[in-house]
Amino acid sequence: MTINEALPTRTDWTERGGTPAVPSTGRLRPLGLREVTLRPGFWQQRQETNRAASLAHIEHWLEKAGWLPNFDAAVEGRLPADRRGREFSDSEVYKLLEAMAWEYGRAGDQDLDARYRAIVRRVAAAQEDDGYLNTNFGRPGQQPRYSDLEWGHELYCYGHLIQAGVAAARAYGINDELARVAIRAADHVCATFGPDGIPSVCGHPVIEPALAELYRVTGDSRYLDQASLFVERRGHQVLDDIEFGRAYFQDDLPVREAGVLRGHAVRANYLGAGAVDVAVETGDTDLLEAVARQWRTAVARRTYITGGVGSRHQDEAYGDDYVLPADRAYSETCASVGSIMLSWRLLLAEGDPRYADLIERTLFNVVAASPADDGTRFFYTNTLHQRVPGTEPQPDQIVPRAASSLRAPWFAVSCCPTNLARTFAGLGAYLATTDEDGVQIHQYAAAALEVSLPGGRTVALEIDTKYPADGRIAIRIARAPETPWTLSLRVPGWAEGATVDEGAGRRRVEPGTVQIRRRFTAGEVVVLDLPVRPRITFGDPRIDAVRGSVAVERGPEVYAVESVDLPGGLSVDEVRLDLDAGLSERDGEVVASFRKLPAGSDAWPYGAPTAPAGEATTFEAPLHPYHRWARRGPSTMRVWLPVNGD
Amino acid sequence: MTINEALPTRTDWTERGGTPAVPSTGRLRPLGLREVTLRPGFWQQRQETNRAASLAHIEHWLEKAGWLPNFDAAVEGRLPADRRGREFSDSEVYKLLEAMAWEYGRAGDQDLDARYRAIVRRVAAAQEDDGYLNTNFGRPGQQPRYSDLEWGHELYCYGHLIQAGVAAARAYGINDELARVAIRAADHVCATFGPDGIPSVCGHPVIEPALAELYRVTGDSRYLDQASLFVERRGHQVLDDIEFGRAYFQDDLPVREAGVLRGHAVRANYLGAGAVDVAVETGDTDLLEAVARQWRTAVARRTYITGGVGSRHQDEAYGDDYVLPADRAYSETCASVGSIMLSWRLLLAEGDPRYADLIERTLFNVVAASPADDGTRFFYTNTLHQRVPGTEPQPDQIVPRAASSLRAPWFAVSCCPTNLARTFAGLGAYLATTDEDGVQIHQYAAAALEVSLPGGRTVALEIDTKYPADGRIAIRIARAPETPWTLSLRVPGWAEGATVDEGAGRRRVEPGTVQIRRRFTAGEVVVLDLPVRPRITFGDPRIDAVRGSVAVERGPEVYAVESVDLPGGLSVDEVRLDLDAGLSERDGEVVASFRKLPAGSDAWPYGAPTAPAGEATTFEAPLHPYHRWARRGPSTMRVWLPVNGD
Repeated sequence: MTINEALPTRTDWTERGGTPAVPSTGRLRPLGLREVTLRPGFWQQRQETNRAASLAHIEHWLEKAGWLPNFDAAVEGRLPADRRGREFSDSEVYKLLEAMAWEYGRAGDQDLDARYRAIVRRVAAAQEDDGYLNTNFGRPGQQPRYSDLEWGHELYCYGHLIQAGVAAARAYGINDELARVAIRAADHVCATFGPDGIPSVCGHPVIEPALAELYRVTGDSRYLDQASLFVERRGHQVLDDIEFGRAYFQDDLPVREAGVLRGHAVRANYLGAGAVDVAVETGDTDLLEAVARQWRTAVARRTYITGGVGSRHQDEAYGDDYVLPADRAYSETCASVGSIMLSWRLLLAEGDPRYADLIERTLFNVVAASPADDGTRFFYTNTLHQRVPGTEPQPDQIVPRAASSLRAPWFAVSCCPTNLARTFAGLGAYLATTDEDGVQIHQYAAAALEVSLPGGRTVALEIDTKYPADGRIAIRIARAPETPWTLSLRVPGWAEGATVDEGAGRRRVEPGTVQIRRRFTAGEVVVLDLPVRPRITFGDPRIDAVRGSVAVERGPEVYAVESVDLPGGLSVDEVRLDLDAGLSERDGEVVASFRKLPAGSDAWPYGAPTAPAGEATTFEAPLHPYHRWARRGPSTMRVWLPVNGD
Repeated sequence: MTINEALPTRTDWTERGGTPAVPSTGRLRPLGLREVTLRPGFWQQRQETNRAASLAHIEHWLEKAGWLPNFDAAVEGRLPADRRGREFSDSEVYKLLEAMAWEYGRAGDQDLDARYRAIVRRVAAAQEDDGYLNTNFGRPGQQPRYSDLEWGHELYCYGHLIQAGVAAARAYGINDELARVAIRAADHVCATFGPDGIPSVCGHPVIEPALAELYRVTGDSRYLDQASLFVERRGHQVLDDIEFGRAYFQDDLPVREAGVLRGHAVRANYLGAGAVDVAVETGDTDLLEAVARQWRTAVARRTYITGGVGSRHQDEAYGDDYVLPADRAYSETCASVGSIMLSWRLLLAEGDPRYADLIERTLFNVVAASPADDGTRFFYTNTLHQRVPGTEPQPDQIVPRAASSLRAPWFAVSCCPTNLARTFAGLGAYLATTDEDGVQIHQYAAAALEVSLPGGRTVALEIDTKYPADGRIAIRIARAPETPWTLSLRVPGWAEGATVDEGAGRRRVEPGTVQIRRRFTAGEVVVLDLPVRPRITFGDPRIDAVRGSVAVERGPEVYAVESVDLPGGLSVDEVRLDLDAGLSERDGEVVASFRKLPAGSDAWPYGAPTAPAGEATTFEAPLHPYHRWARRGPSTMRVWLPVNGD
């Protein structure tokens, strides 16, 4: 637990394309979005789909649903009559703008830039003289400003506005119009909620990391102070109690006293991210350790094998310890985006590869699972067990968020598509970092890196891999300084038997971090080989929901069985995995053996243990990565597979 | 499947104390509440607590919460300003009146009668000239009548009003003021929602069985026709779609086409009860079989071991087949009341002892679990697994319904206390029935029965038992006709090894029904011996949530482990049942052996199967009936116990 290394703050990030989260102290330094270029492969394909399809799709729906026109209506005095959408709909516009800003920072697309500027103009026009900006409050016929902190989401909307403004400042420069709008809003917030202002917080955290990031961009400590104030106020019952209890919005216990992430999962993760930001900027190691402890406990007890979090539909919340039912796993896409934000900040602060392990797991098994291949439909929730085939929404259908439908074009609460968009646009940031002595590679993807080490040294790397389909990752040193430096490679926690070859033969490396410190020559290739053979995974015996079942994983990917791959119209619930037969890999598919369960009856289902374990004969069927599920039409699906002998 | 025997309809039930549900055809005839007198024992104690404490407690809260004063406010023109409570709060007043009417019918308490009349007067005063009666709609400043059929609960409130009116008619006579109020309301409903009226239904069924029952009381076929119309209209998407989908209020599929009970569990069961009522009154065997099929499937696939139903918190709904997690089992008390209403109607129609089996299970393990011993606090939900000790609500605290608190005095949605009250008041009705040839005993409790068989024959029975503590049930023939008749005894499905002794030695009888047809002599005793030894119960292998776990049952009671019975402050989640050690019974307690699990860690909880199954040494701890749980302060609790070796 250290916050001991000063990093350059307030660097002009614009030339590096900006990046999300730039702490001024910590073990590791982030890279700019132009320092990491994804090359064709698993993640580049998704980033490109996001750029080419999802951003326009979201823009279309924000217009169509009326959430962007709400700003025009505000300017034209047509509110509240013409207002559309839920109380937090403004935030979706801001998240789109954040995504566009990162995308511009990364690739400088001029068409995108023009669309971005047009939206910013409409948003800016709606800002009031005192910096207030919200289409849902404060006008005649609307609820008064800040009259419903529990559910009104006003500060939540500012949080996303400020995050977008930070992206604008880093990608375009501090004088970008959106950055100025965000600064005016932040000034208004500091004036209204400061030490002598309203002594409360927002029902939905997110302004905390946003204000801390705005401090990093502007150097204005008022924003950090306000972020700190919001972090410290929460947990002292400053919000009204609600049906779900105050844990829902983390107002049950102060952040520094809580032992585990709890309540609404998106809220919990955003708050954790903000608390880390405050901790590293103020040198508050107690606060940092408190969040790290919550992270560790949540990972050990409240996280699905996919990395997804939040087991409850009702309040979109973390459940109690070890309550992780695959059925109706909520595992909201946004909660995973929040989890990545939190893990990334902890990784930068502490350098522990377990944070990057969770990011990898979450990226491959939630973030990659949510969007359709064409980038215009999304999973809001990411269940691990589908018992009844879902329905395919119509292309123009707004789907209730919790519906058991297949990927949908838009939702009544449509937080996930925009959250994915900003994540994909900024995805390159999560691949690697630097420190005083070298480069750390955390995530593996085909990519080119060109980074500056302290002392003006430059390192350029070309990463060649088909990961995760293949475990071979070849890192070519394209440019290197004359002096020794350290190349650090994360060996994922699952990668028992990994090897590294620096050119003199393979040597085994253990999960964790492998550090190669020496002088490198341009053209050299370091090969990391991760064993991506399919493997059987068991759950902790405390997790009741997976007792007597196993999962199949391969590399960072969790696998699933879908009924479309089973013979004779069988549902996934009518088969048992034949564990003794093992797994094989054939023509790029993972194949397992199954037995068919005898048909169920109408008898009372509890009694003596007479139920047979399945037919004697087995049959083979393929499994596919979980993130590929429901891409071949409606089907039933299981991640956790009961084994014969139960 | 038969509806082939005409039963006397429109009998004057007043002299028999009334009874809930009086079909005019069917296999079995109900008894009046004065034909069955509970004697001291398990159920009499609870019925007495209901009479002496719960009814007054409910009346107190209806006043305090303002739900009864809403009627005064309606009369005095103070609505909507002075209205309190949710949109369906009127119904709680009606359910209290129904409970009071059954209680009066059963025991004729004069103090209760005066309180009943005072409330009826206030309700009656609020009825409008056209029969409309609802404190939440139709006045200036309120929503218009019938403008929100999905959520407004207007017809639902009528349903409970009419059920109360039916109870009044049967217990007091058809000219009772409440019966007249109900008839005026029913006439208004028929005029408004008849064949030429509003072509829709209520989002919450219950008016269906109520109208059918009013037909039985009055003989006016308009009420049956309207009940039938409501049953048939539903399922044709006559209500708007909602976030939970139309299955929530059973508007997804017509009753006669659905294969299983689904959606909101209270709604589903009330609707099923109404559909059976319509089916038996109209001779519609297809409709009856459709509901019976839904019942069978729901019992085999969607019912907890306690008999409780509804696994989802979010929409208080039946889950998919075999989704029965013990964690956060919703198992709403009201859903079990509805389940008993439905099973009872099916039992009367078909005579199958499986319906009585489910009623017994539900009575002992949900209905008996909900109220505190003093009858003034209640469980709304009845989870099968409490991982974190609940909190004890304050005596004056209104608790959100889904809060994980211990039994609470009142709820924001307080449907369960009143539903229990009417069930306990009418409990005697479920003990026995008659048919052309004799008496059928379905539930075992200390009681006296005096019933008339066709042909003026009278049978009087005295049932002496300490059931369920003891399995011996002695049935003394106190009076019997000279001619042969049949005494039928249900042998519960769990009771393998039961015996009957008619005086000439014990003989083994199988689960189902044992029929003794002969001439009986006054003073004879028939002894049924049910084996109430503790037993280990396994779940169907399709129920993922209980795989690798067992439950302990004893007679009709499901048992549970509570942390207050474990040594060293252990939680129920830190132990494993030692299955090999078996169960023993000692000093009236069921005792089992357990092993302690090693402490958990902060490691990623998925991987190779290295987790040990528990310490080698075992310790003993008692289990108690589930319905006794949380009566000794906050604790953790499990019904399903993981066994060592997982």
